Amino acid sequence: MTKKQKRPGAAKPVSKPWSGRFRNRTHRLVETFTSSLSFDRRLYPYDLQGSVAHCKALERAGVLSRKETAQILRGLEEVRSELESGRFSFAEEDEDIHMAIERRLTELIGPIGGKLHTGRSRNDQVALDVRLYLRDALGALLDSLRRFQRVLLEKARAHLDVVMPGYTHLQRAQPVLFAHHLLAYVEMIERDKGRVRDALVRLDVMPLGSGALAGTNYPVDRTYTARLLGFTQVSENSLDAVSDRDFAIEVLASLAMVMMHLSRLSEELVLWASQEFQFVDLPDSFCTGSSMMPQKKNPDVPELVRGKTGRVYGHLLALLTTLKGLPLSYNRDLQEDKEALFDAMSTVVASLEVSTELIKGLTVNRAMLAKAAGSGYLLATELADYLVTKGVPFRQAHVTIGRVVRWCLDRKQDLRDLTLADLRSFSDRFEKDALDVVTVEGAIERKAQIGGTARKRVEARIKALEKVLTLRS
Amino acid sequence: MTKKQKRPGAAKPVSKPWSGRFRNRTHRLVETFTSSLSFDRRLYPYDLQGSVAHCKALERAGVLSRKETAQILRGLEEVRSELESGRFSFAEEDEDIHMAIERRLTELIGPIGGKLHTGRSRNDQVALDVRLYLRDALGALLDSLRRFQRVLLEKARAHLDVVMPGYTHLQRAQPVLFAHHLLAYVEMIERDKGRVRDALVRLDVMPLGSGALAGTNYPVDRTYTARLLGFTQVSENSLDAVSDRDFAIEVLASLAMVMMHLSRLSEELVLWASQEFQFVDLPDSFCTGSSMMPQKKNPDVPELVRGKTGRVYGHLLALLTTLKGLPLSYNRDLQEDKEALFDAMSTVVASLEVSTELIKGLTVNRAMLAKAAGSGYLLATELADYLVTKGVPFRQAHVTIGRVVRWCLDRKQDLRDLTLADLRSFSDRFEKDALDVVTVEGAIERKAQIGGTARKRVEARIKALEKVLTLRS
Amino acid sequence: MTKKQKRPGAAKPVSKPWSGRFRNRTHRLVETFTSSLSFDRRLYPYDLQGSVAHCKALERAGVLSRKETAQILRGLEEVRSELESGRFSFAEEDEDIHMAIERRLTELIGPIGGKLHTGRSRNDQVALDVRLYLRDALGALLDSLRRFQRVLLEKARAHLDVVMPGYTHLQRAQPVLFAHHLLAYVEMIERDKGRVRDALVRLDVMPLGSGALAGTNYPVDRTYTARLLGFTQVSENSLDAVSDRDFAIEVLASLAMVMMHLSRLSEELVLWASQEFQFVDLPDSFCTGSSMMPQKKNPDVPELVRGKTGRVYGHLLALLTTLKGLPLSYNRDLQEDKEALFDAMSTVVASLEVSTELIKGLTVNRAMLAKAAGSGYLLATELADYLVTKGVPFRQAHVTIGRVVRWCLDRKQDLRDLTLADLRSFSDRFEKDALDVVTVEGAIERKAQIGGTARKRVEARIKALEKVLTLRS
Amino acid sequence: MTKKQKRPGAAKPVSKPWSGRFRNRTHRLVETFTSSLSFDRRLYPYDLQGSVAHCKALERAGVLSRKETAQILRGLEEVRSELESGRFSFAEEDEDIHMAIERRLTELIGPIGGKLHTGRSRNDQVALDVRLYLRDALGALLDSLRRFQRVLLEKARAHLDVVMPGYTHLQRAQPVLFAHHLLAYVEMIERDKGRVRDALVRLDVMPLGSGALAGTNYPVDRTYTARLLGFTQVSENSLDAVSDRDFAIEVLASLAMVMMHLSRLSEELVLWASQEFQFVDLPDSFCTGSSMMPQKKNPDVPELVRGKTGRVYGHLLALLTTLKGLPLSYNRDLQEDKEALFDAMSTVVASLEVSTELIKGLTVNRAMLAKAAGSGYLLATELADYLVTKGVPFRQAHVTIGRVVRWCLDRKQDLRDLTLADLRSFSDRFEKDALDVVTVEGAIERKAQIGGTARKRVEARIKALEKVLTLRS
Repeated sequence: MTKKQKRPGAAKPVSKPWSGRFRNRTHRLVETFTSSLSFDRRLYPYDLQGSVAHCKALERAGVLSRKETAQILRGLEEVRSELESGRFSFAEEDEDIHMAIERRLTELIGPIGGKLHTGRSRNDQVALDVRLYLRDALGALLDSLRRFQRVLLEKARAHLDVVMPGYTHLQRAQPVLFAHHLLAYVEMIERDKGRVRDALVRLDVMPLGSGALAGTNYPVDRTYTARLLGFTQVSENSLDAVSDRDFAIEVLASLAMVMMHLSRLSEELVLWASQEFQFVDLPDSFCTGSSMMPQKKNPDVPELVRGKTGRVYGHLLALLTTLKGLPLSYNRDLQEDKEALFDAMSTVVASLEVSTELIKGLTVNRAMLAKAAGSGYLLATELADYLVTKGVPFRQAHVTIGRVVRWCLDRKQDLRDLTLADLRSFSDRFEKDALDVVTVEGAIERKAQIGGTARKRVEARIKALEKVLTLRS
Repeated sequence: MTKKQKRPGAAKPVSKPWSGRFRNRTHRLVETFTSSLSFDRRLYPYDLQGSVAHCKALERAGVLSRKETAQILRGLEEVRSELESGRFSFAEEDEDIHMAIERRLTELIGPIGGKLHTGRSRNDQVALDVRLYLRDALGALLDSLRRFQRVLLEKARAHLDVVMPGYTHLQRAQPVLFAHHLLAYVEMIERDKGRVRDALVRLDVMPLGSGALAGTNYPVDRTYTARLLGFTQVSENSLDAVSDRDFAIEVLASLAMVMMHLSRLSEELVLWASQEFQFVDLPDSFCTGSSMMPQKKNPDVPELVRGKTGRVYGHLLALLTTLKGLPLSYNRDLQEDKEALFDAMSTVVASLEVSTELIKGLTVNRAMLAKAAGSGYLLATELADYLVTKGVPFRQAHVTIGRVVRWCLDRKQDLRDLTLADLRSFSDRFEKDALDVVTVEGAIERKAQIGGTARKRVEARIKALEKVLTLRS
Repeated sequence: MTKKQKRPGAAKPVSKPWSGRFRNRTHRLVETFTSSLSFDRRLYPYDLQGSVAHCKALERAGVLSRKETAQILRGLEEVRSELESGRFSFAEEDEDIHMAIERRLTELIGPIGGKLHTGRSRNDQVALDVRLYLRDALGALLDSLRRFQRVLLEKARAHLDVVMPGYTHLQRAQPVLFAHHLLAYVEMIERDKGRVRDALVRLDVMPLGSGALAGTNYPVDRTYTARLLGFTQVSENSLDAVSDRDFAIEVLASLAMVMMHLSRLSEELVLWASQEFQFVDLPDSFCTGSSMMPQKKNPDVPELVRGKTGRVYGHLLALLTTLKGLPLSYNRDLQEDKEALFDAMSTVVASLEVSTELIKGLTVNRAMLAKAAGSGYLLATELADYLVTKGVPFRQAHVTIGRVVRWCLDRKQDLRDLTLADLRSFSDRFEKDALDVVTVEGAIERKAQIGGTARKRVEARIKALEKVLTLRS
Repeated sequence: MTKKQKRPGAAKPVSKPWSGRFRNRTHRLVETFTSSLSFDRRLYPYDLQGSVAHCKALERAGVLSRKETAQILRGLEEVRSELESGRFSFAEEDEDIHMAIERRLTELIGPIGGKLHTGRSRNDQVALDVRLYLRDALGALLDSLRRFQRVLLEKARAHLDVVMPGYTHLQRAQPVLFAHHLLAYVEMIERDKGRVRDALVRLDVMPLGSGALAGTNYPVDRTYTARLLGFTQVSENSLDAVSDRDFAIEVLASLAMVMMHLSRLSEELVLWASQEFQFVDLPDSFCTGSSMMPQKKNPDVPELVRGKTGRVYGHLLALLTTLKGLPLSYNRDLQEDKEALFDAMSTVVASLEVSTELIKGLTVNRAMLAKAAGSGYLLATELADYLVTKGVPFRQAHVTIGRVVRWCLDRKQDLRDLTLADLRSFSDRFEKDALDVVTVEGAIERKAQIGGTARKRVEARIKALEKVLTLRS
């Protein structure tokens, strides 16, 4: 110590591991403003995982001795145990989880702990940690997406006989199976999973060994580190590896789309639960009341899911904005990636979970759906297609049936009330069979091509999707 | 109790104040998903302030007796004291700060506490709370903006003699005073303050008394409540009052613009602190080092401020998205306003504070600035304007000087190295005085119209702005 | 000419007014990529207006002679006439409307045209042009907003007797007047107008005389130019004046909020026009049909208005992103402001216009609204408030009525079907008058405080708003 | 005709193919507001391609006779020829390109043209058209991305011997090869291409046969249509197929990331071309001048590319917003997808093209780069790593070298000026070889692990990437 104090620059109170070239301590405001510890501490398991692998790679490269390696690994285990049990105490000068762990390691095992960071920088370290975190989180997300699909499939299968009005422009359009409607969401989620899986492939790149920006001076075998950590590729450019946040943006874009899908379903649930639609009953346990109006039972869950869509969009935009125009390589702006990712991920998973349970508890009001599907002019297209079978060009058939509808509207009557004579007053091509052909059941069953709402098609699709879910999970 | 239990519907375990018409308890997942307590608890002082005023208005309207009013007010004070001291314990079934406070009030003073919510709904209550919060927060924001301006003005005044190159397209353009450059940011903040003040005017509308959506059945004098709470207007439409989040979006848009301004200054600080510019030195205490590279002193603060711009943009977008397409009146989606507002507000205030201290600690490298302003072709426009004074149309003068520059570039020489003979080979209009006129000092002093960079103009503007800051703070 | 050609640098083919210092012509790709002529040509009236004022200010400053001024003004008039009549032919090398006009001016009046740009840069010129454009455009926007309000007020007045269910969470909540509901939108637009007016105040700053970035060398009286152009203030900092796009972002933020409001109304119109609600009929002339389904009459207009909300949000975000992190002063990135502004402005004005006509043509289905308002449990709060008048604390009354509702739900009966005996089985406080008090009419009329839905309140508010519209237009 | 006129509803002037049930013509304002013809006409080749395939599938299904098919196909060819040659005249009542083509077809071949739309709706038709367009556009985008990579690789290879300072936080950090820096962008683009290819896979789904929403009544073989159009999959749910715009959002998200990458390179080019950096010279033909300052040569191209990033982000956000909360199935809001896609696509392709040419024309200022890489404290990490090789724990070595740097800073001297004695005053571990080891060349060559900046690594990576580009294009 005496010796050290005589050395130049040594007289200053040192509080940071990097403060050798600094004359003054970090300003209190700056400590608070720049610290990431409040949110990056959740990365600790990944940070430890990365450090263990890095330590082993250093040993293999001959940078650490067998004994040093053992000491460091033991120390890291002790740190892990402290963190897991909540005994770990963070110090004021800890800027982030990386420095907190290294500090504690050195407290536990002495200066040898200072060898762990050899050939490594926080720049490649955090790139690794976030990738490890996302690999886990996306795995969990895929599970949530699958669970959601399963519940939708179960609900669909249990209601294969329920017909409802299909809508375009929120106007009743043609009858469809309720199951077919639910399956539309299963397809959306299927695409979401595809995007997540693609993101996982691009995430499967190990950045450690990129150092601060230029690579490492030590002969570590990066493919060995990658293997230890379960990656199949290593990053091919050190500057890119520490600057790149594509993976975070790609994940946020995929999450934004999941929320978009959930927002559409949520909108429908809110509509369906209204007194005007009355298509479904939401379980009491998924609704809340009003502090003022005693009769209220509000669909808070789908409303909140819909509302949280904005939040996830916002995170995507935030990170895109942050990255815009940043020169290479690492810039401190990149620290903003984590809170956006963490909050987006937990928002989406929570929204999926609660939506899954909500769908599970949903009661379908078969009577109302049947009534809605049966009335109105939902069979007008069937009538037009009938005329087509009698040789009328479709465009002309369309015009004719349009007039039929207009005529009914003026008389406030339904298509069902039309007689053959009525029909024939619009076109001589109408024959006796017209009134038999034009039924809700017929309309459903005729849509028998792939993707159509015919029952056998819908059933087959349920089966196929169930198989997909079995195979992949 | 025995009596109650015989009453219909009474046998069910009741956990929520609104659960009379419900058969089942709220699902655990839903409790977590919908609870706003983790973030809206910070509204408690405003919630209490609103409740006190509401209580007094109910008394005045004859709805509460003098004694009841006194009891409730005393209870509210007790609740406040518990909350302030941290003794308040939140219950699992508390959905939000409003219900938590009402619950506790009733525990403290008995069923009479249940009278407080008469003629009120959480819909108008939360609209009030957020307005009260924002009124305070915007006041504090104005203070932060003013402090930031003051530091910029002080820095400008202290460097009135420093010339620097002004830039367009990040190319050196014309010499300007360093103070003039700093004042540009004071002007931006001046506009920011204008927007905040306008937002405060539109915020000055008291929504309580709008009930859940339709108004209140009780003859409360809403202007009295408004007066108690320091508002000058009351909302004129109950449906609008509970659906409206314009004020939140307007605030977020203003905050986004503040961050945009800070991001521009931050970008400049990062540039100026680079080895290439060397225009300023940031204080050690505002920089951090590298975990790997011992020489590094990084401008983390301006980088992070710049990065956090995305975050605030994201919150603006999030709320805009959330509001899009919502039917009237209150929908649960609106709950998403608070976290966005809180985080945006604290991000902006922290960014302002840390930027204020950073500017205060900034060392200006006068030598480098002078060198940069003196070299290059920054006086080319002065030469063109010289020709104009000799009767050459500006466009033609511009072309001539363009050629002079080209000629110098080819010879790798500076404008300063030109002889009169050189100049006259481009135009006979050049006379002896040309070489005297074209100086950095002359270039600065000739920009003497309002808004120009002439020293007397800049000094006058500093004085004017100092006065503005004195008057309004 | 012979003389000129001997001069250094003169041998190169010159195509741009600024090309003196350049050796090579602009690349064809770059011409296309950087040209703004395709969109900024719409600024020509403002560019001419600015040039006229600049020319007069130059004369007053003694920079231009009386004769030169007259020539230039005559030339500008000729240019205007060519532009207005479509006779103006743009040249390939015209980069933007400013250079196109100057080029043509010089063709028409000779080299003297080259004097117009004395002491001016495109940087301050375009800042002026966009402000002049926005001043006009915001004036027109205010007119469109007022027209929209007027139609809403007329519709409200014409339906003062129509009751509808008010909603929270899209669940029927309490009865309100249809007029009250429409007035909510008038209030929103009133705030929109306030924001536009505030933006106009901040827009009222004349930037000309800021030059490229540092001010002007010529003794122009900027306040004179401002007066000629109808501005009350001049910019106070030249660097800021050419870098500032706050006014554009502020306008875009205001436009985004207008669209948000329109999106909410549009959502309601889509709902109301559905077969489930049937609250309104949209005029045939505002709907379109389906290419396939003959019966369809789709509410395309509100759907598109709702959809275009994203577009305007996108423009706001685009400009915020563009501005993020730009150093001072002018950077070419700023060119991106115009298309965003133009498209946002025309989208909003078109959406307002078409919504105005749509509301005008709307048929209100009084029977359906009455039926919807009468059924359900919309009077539950009235029942609770009844108990309050009998001394029951509100919270307890709420629970009691919640149980009443539950009991009715179980019996599938309405509140209207309750007998006094039924009521008294829940609370002894119910007396004979209960059944008289609890009516839709009573519920409406009791909401008689400011902002409430009582008819006299609504009528008074219509009157007040009509007066506001008369005064300000 | 006489007969028809007696039929009910026939007396009204008919202007739209779907107007049978309508009483009134479309309002002029609505025609303008809802028309998509101004932008969707660019889809005509895809619309015709789809119609040809649909026609053949109808024939195969027995819906059209051989003769009818031939007639229609001939008619479509005639329409194509008119459109290609510009002879096609659009009619006022044409709402979109689909109806325009069908109208013209029927004019050309008579009522038989009205058979083409059998079993088809504009909803599935436009979903097909946009997919076909995107398939082409993404193919072209991949080509542009590859061309850009090739130019970067060529530039890198041509400058393999050039060293530059690598940066973190825009502070000089460690020396890297200029080629290594350029390769970072090649890696980014490689990921961009991966995302585009993944999007193409998800795009490879044929939606035709989904009808308006429920499927088709006709026994068309959808896999046959898909084969004709070069798709490998058909959509599996008709409701989803007409509501889905995932593919558009996914493309916009990928485009946003491409722009983000280009914005980072553009920022660097702007920096490098500044008088402070002077790392590169941009070709004259890629810069423009100032209307006022004769010496200016501005990097407009990278500035504009950077600025246009906001525009593409805006389009992504716009479409996400539009989709939020839309119920199934088709809603008119979806029409907003096209302009966003078209503009984003052309912005990105133009930005890539112009950036490609710019990089090609870039002159690298080797002297400046060498000087910048040699000075400063870029070798501090090498010194620390030297101590590590002598057994000092890295963290301690870091602190020691930090003090060395501090000492040099105080003396305003460089690391190069240190003597062995100087070094040994900080640590006895320094030996004679220290001064040999610590060179720029050594620093570069020691970074020899995968992804490092050692020349052999960079060269190998160039080779590998060149191979990738050969194989895939």
